Amino acid sequence: MQIKEQLYEGKAKKVFRTDDPELLVVSYKDDATAFNGLKKGMIAGKGVINNRMSNLLMQRLEKCGIPTHFVKQLSERETVVKRVSIVPLEVIVRNIAAGSFSQRYGVKEGERLAAPTIEFSYKNDELGDPLINDHHAISLGLASADEIETIKKYAFAVNEQLKVFWAKCGVTLVDFKLEFGRLSDGTIVLADEISPDTCRFWDSSTGEKLDKDRFRRDMGGVEDAYTEIMQRLTNHL
Amino acid sequence: MQIKEQLYEGKAKKVFRTDDPELLVVSYKDDATAFNGLKKGMIAGKGVINNRMSNLLMQRLEKCGIPTHFVKQLSERETVVKRVSIVPLEVIVRNIAAGSFSQRYGVKEGERLAAPTIEFSYKNDELGDPLINDHHAISLGLASADEIETIKKYAFAVNEQLKVFWAKCGVTLVDFKLEFGRLSDGTIVLADEISPDTCRFWDSSTGEKLDKDRFRRDMGGVEDAYTEIMQRLTNHL
Repeated sequence: MQIKEQLYEGKAKKVFRTDDPELLVVSYKDDATAFNGLKKGMIAGKGVINNRMSNLLMQRLEKCGIPTHFVKQLSERETVVKRVSIVPLEVIVRNIAAGSFSQRYGVKEGERLAAPTIEFSYKNDELGDPLINDHHAISLGLASADEIETIKKYAFAVNEQLKVFWAKCGVTLVDFKLEFGRLSDGTIVLADEISPDTCRFWDSSTGEKLDKDRFRRDMGGVEDAYTEIMQRLTNHL
Repeated sequence: MQIKEQLYEGKAKKVFRTDDPELLVVSYKDDATAFNGLKKGMIAGKGVINNRMSNLLMQRLEKCGIPTHFVKQLSERETVVKRVSIVPLEVIVRNIAAGSFSQRYGVKEGERLAAPTIEFSYKNDELGDPLINDHHAISLGLASADEIETIKKYAFAVNEQLKVFWAKCGVTLVDFKLEFGRLSDGTIVLADEISPDTCRFWDSSTGEKLDKDRFRRDMGGVEDAYTEIMQRLTNHL
């Protein structure tokens, strides 16, 4: 397989074409953004950690019957993935109130929800990724009713798997964001990444934040938190 | 039945206790507010029109099998209704893109949606009535899963009935907001009001707005629009 020209540069990754029309290469950057790109920075070594963590977790999820875009890690920052067209919905699963949920609904951060919840944001930077429900997503043609059902089923299954895995590492999985894509035959697979950029990880004993909130909230110790959470993962594989 | 002390004064109505614990009296005011109370004003004669329109439409809906809080009109501004505890969700049904939907999702006002949609806002002035989905409403204990299913079924049924009725009056029903309540035995019934304060009504030929958007958007002719839409209704009963 040959890597060809860059197709796209996102906030945290670059994407390259390959000589296989069904495969792409993603390359993880150390760049960090928050608040819809308003806050910008750099987290040294983040790209290496996120690439490795995402690949390890996606391989675990594949074994549990959740299809993903993962194909093969090429280098510490580069991974071959299946080419998908991304469903323009950010899929957020929550176990505990935090972040925008706490602010929007006036629920204290840290309060456990009666049951895991799911929500969608319309991936649209210009509109600020607004919250959207199933009816509106279908009405705007962002996804079909069947696709939404499949996405919800997979997202809750990811939560069940990851919650148990991270608990063994002494980490509470508070919430996380997933993205899904369509293969050329329309099959829905988990895409994007699963990393401290896209999950809230709290130390189960101390509640210490081991994720991008340290960057968002100027808490310091960002690199150490990324290193620590990656260490916890590799200790328990 | 005796009217007792005032229990509550809202933005557009006052509510009084009666000597029957299961009945209340609502009294419609001419006060108008918009944008979560930021804009305040008065629409002369609005209370009389909204009272009469809401009662006429609720009686129609009852005949179609949709239970409502309506009991009996007492005077031009006053109506006896069943006492309910309001489900703290604003239920918005949309046939055509307009208002906050257009702004939130970048869809041109006036575009017909592929199918009618429904959305919920959490009735909470302090939080600015944020959009909320089923999972979150259930998780926050605002309504049960069964109640949400019942509310959706009734809301879509109201839309089907009112769309056809208003079409006969030469009026396009663009969108509307409903509120539901629980009777003392837990039965869900349609409550609040159905009026130009809570619906978008457009003249089917000219597109002229015959509703509170004339007030919200400082378009003038507010009282005339309320009078006109009421006239259309009475002409077709």
